[in-house]
Amino acid sequence: MSNSAFEFSDNAYVERMLQHCDTLAYISEMEDGILRQYLTAAHKQCNTTVAGWMTEAGMQTWQDEVGNQWGRLASKNADAPRLIIGSHLDTVPNAGAFDGILGVLMGIELAAYMRDNAIDLPFHIDVVGFCDEEGTRYGVTLIGSRALAGTFVPDWLDIEDPDGKTMRDAMIDFGLQPEDFGKASLQGENIAGYWEIHIEQGPVLEAEKLSIGVVTAIAGARRGQIRFKGLAGHAGTTPMHLRKDALCGAAELTLAIEKMANDCNDDRVATVGEIGIRPGAVNVIPGAAVISLDVRSQFDDKRDQLIDDIAEIADTIASGRHLSIEWQWHHKASSVPCNKDFQKIFADAMQAVNLPVRHLPSGAGHDAMAIADLCEVAMLFIRSPRGLSHHPEESVIAEDVVDAFHTMCQAIQMYKP
Amino acid sequence: MSNSAFEFSDNAYVERMLQHCDTLAYISEMEDGILRQYLTAAHKQCNTTVAGWMTEAGMQTWQDEVGNQWGRLASKNADAPRLIIGSHLDTVPNAGAFDGILGVLMGIELAAYMRDNAIDLPFHIDVVGFCDEEGTRYGVTLIGSRALAGTFVPDWLDIEDPDGKTMRDAMIDFGLQPEDFGKASLQGENIAGYWEIHIEQGPVLEAEKLSIGVVTAIAGARRGQIRFKGLAGHAGTTPMHLRKDALCGAAELTLAIEKMANDCNDDRVATVGEIGIRPGAVNVIPGAAVISLDVRSQFDDKRDQLIDDIAEIADTIASGRHLSIEWQWHHKASSVPCNKDFQKIFADAMQAVNLPVRHLPSGAGHDAMAIADLCEVAMLFIRSPRGLSHHPEESVIAEDVVDAFHTMCQAIQMYKP
Repeated sequence: MSNSAFEFSDNAYVERMLQHCDTLAYISEMEDGILRQYLTAAHKQCNTTVAGWMTEAGMQTWQDEVGNQWGRLASKNADAPRLIIGSHLDTVPNAGAFDGILGVLMGIELAAYMRDNAIDLPFHIDVVGFCDEEGTRYGVTLIGSRALAGTFVPDWLDIEDPDGKTMRDAMIDFGLQPEDFGKASLQGENIAGYWEIHIEQGPVLEAEKLSIGVVTAIAGARRGQIRFKGLAGHAGTTPMHLRKDALCGAAELTLAIEKMANDCNDDRVATVGEIGIRPGAVNVIPGAAVISLDVRSQFDDKRDQLIDDIAEIADTIASGRHLSIEWQWHHKASSVPCNKDFQKIFADAMQAVNLPVRHLPSGAGHDAMAIADLCEVAMLFIRSPRGLSHHPEESVIAEDVVDAFHTMCQAIQMYKP
Repeated sequence: MSNSAFEFSDNAYVERMLQHCDTLAYISEMEDGILRQYLTAAHKQCNTTVAGWMTEAGMQTWQDEVGNQWGRLASKNADAPRLIIGSHLDTVPNAGAFDGILGVLMGIELAAYMRDNAIDLPFHIDVVGFCDEEGTRYGVTLIGSRALAGTFVPDWLDIEDPDGKTMRDAMIDFGLQPEDFGKASLQGENIAGYWEIHIEQGPVLEAEKLSIGVVTAIAGARRGQIRFKGLAGHAGTTPMHLRKDALCGAAELTLAIEKMANDCNDDRVATVGEIGIRPGAVNVIPGAAVISLDVRSQFDDKRDQLIDDIAEIADTIASGRHLSIEWQWHHKASSVPCNKDFQKIFADAMQAVNLPVRHLPSGAGHDAMAIADLCEVAMLFIRSPRGLSHHPEESVIAEDVVDAFHTMCQAIQMYKP
């Protein structure tokens, strides 16, 4: 824990924040774990609970047309721009208690601090708890933040959940008017920016013994599949030199991908997370193999260069082994840079509270990606012990949350729209 | 087709043999493919049909206590030893028409030839069609030949097929006395040897443009699994240098296995035929990976040396990557050598019919493996186009079957027990 430039009578704000994380962990669709999906009873109960905390923090509250929960600590200047602070309240199945949630509750406690200390700001603090970021129920992600940015896709209303219920019908059951989704858009409004505090969900800060870091950009990802075809054969009767082993081709490419990403010596990461072979029997040479590929970087051009290099190596491997090869891309997202002025405010705030400043990219996607279509965005990461997230053992260190809270208290007061 | 030292008025024997393969292909449990499992109606109909052909070839016929079909062309010397010629009549699902079957029908036509030409032999020709070699129904293989060798395991009677029917009940339905299995054993009988003609089921003869080859040994196989454990992680948030990717470890070992077997430059083969990873998602670094390993050679010591070398490399790979590694062996069969005198007779016979002599090991298992516990064994391989077997497109070239038939006619007459 840093020595704060602030005088806190105690860490009551952070204590309450962590208690509230614990409270929300019990609002779940699962008996023995955390699951809060879009437009469920858990979603409704969560919004109601969070709205109560917002009210206690002195905020006006409302729920928007797609189910995002809002709270405003109003500036004395009614025409002031809005600084949105938030993250998401939904979870994956068997989730941790902090992914998304901590960022929303941090916003509420920051508002409470400003209210308690009678600090008037030249902007409204609009805290948002997004209704869906994970995409667990309908397979489309960032529903809440995309509605805000005006990029909600009307066809989504017809998507069915695994039980066959459309998003439209679920919205009606929830008490929403599905066709009103457009009214949740803030396009054209006077928005100062969007700030998101989030757990890192990775091991970088921990490896460097740092509590928090300033996010430079949200990495753009490309995802695809690579299929090798060779010739299945009897593992006993086919001599080594007469084989066309598709798995060996896939294995060679997997290692090449790892080495090439390693050799980049920058933020580029490339992962083979899935592999499948056919026929898949102990005594049969694999005739076909498919691997997935996920490549990310905060720099789209560097990412695409790595992919080009991988593709070239892949062709060489395939032709050397007399295998056929086929690529299929099914996801491409551009990198989203965080606003440089915001980054400077965060860094200055960290220095003001005597914290070393570390900048790092985000390899995971976040609501800020979608909000970038609406306004400038910024993110602050909090160390994730063991890099764990999307896991019941996901955790935070209380002192790190104190560091983040101190930093954001400073940043809010430093910021002049 | 070679120039035979024999005078055949025509190739009627081979023609009939191939017609009979075609006939048996229609005795199946499947509508659109070949499947004959142990103790089924197809098994019964197949035995009856084959027994009819044996009778036409001048043989006495019987079915033994486990359901093997027998035919004898008796020597004039009633006390003469028995030369067993045979293979199996059962099949895998969606099988070809020649695996096993051709060897049984070859035995019958050889007997027919001897009878037609009034050639008296100093041994009985006992042709056997084994009831189960593939193990399709009960998961245990070589049931027919192991009953003959006296190595049938009594506990097998309690094994249930996928429908829950025990082998015992199926035997009773078939008309057998389950507890009589021991009477099928020929231990202590006057057996001259066992000869098996079989399709190669591999690409070696085809690659060398040879019709037939003399088998030196049936390779001994060892099979196991190797498990790597690392650490699952987010594909976007975990930098390359902080990963413990279990799939990359498995991929490195897969390639090492291929290279080491290749570098042996002998009959040793090593195959990774199965791979599984967890959790197995496009955006998650694999935390666990398991691969299968199948290693074979006609020389057990060479095979075990290769396995030792693989294990050493595997440990190096695991420790270099900070992965844990675990081995599990679940199958070990010793190599079964073919009798050298029999090999010489086969080779001499090939030379007598002007065929080049090629010796090769069998990488696949065969009934001869089990019969080796009873008597000396020998095998002759017939070229497998495209190496295909256990597949509807499994085939033979008629001229190759003629070569095999000519060779075996010679060999039978050369052999003096």
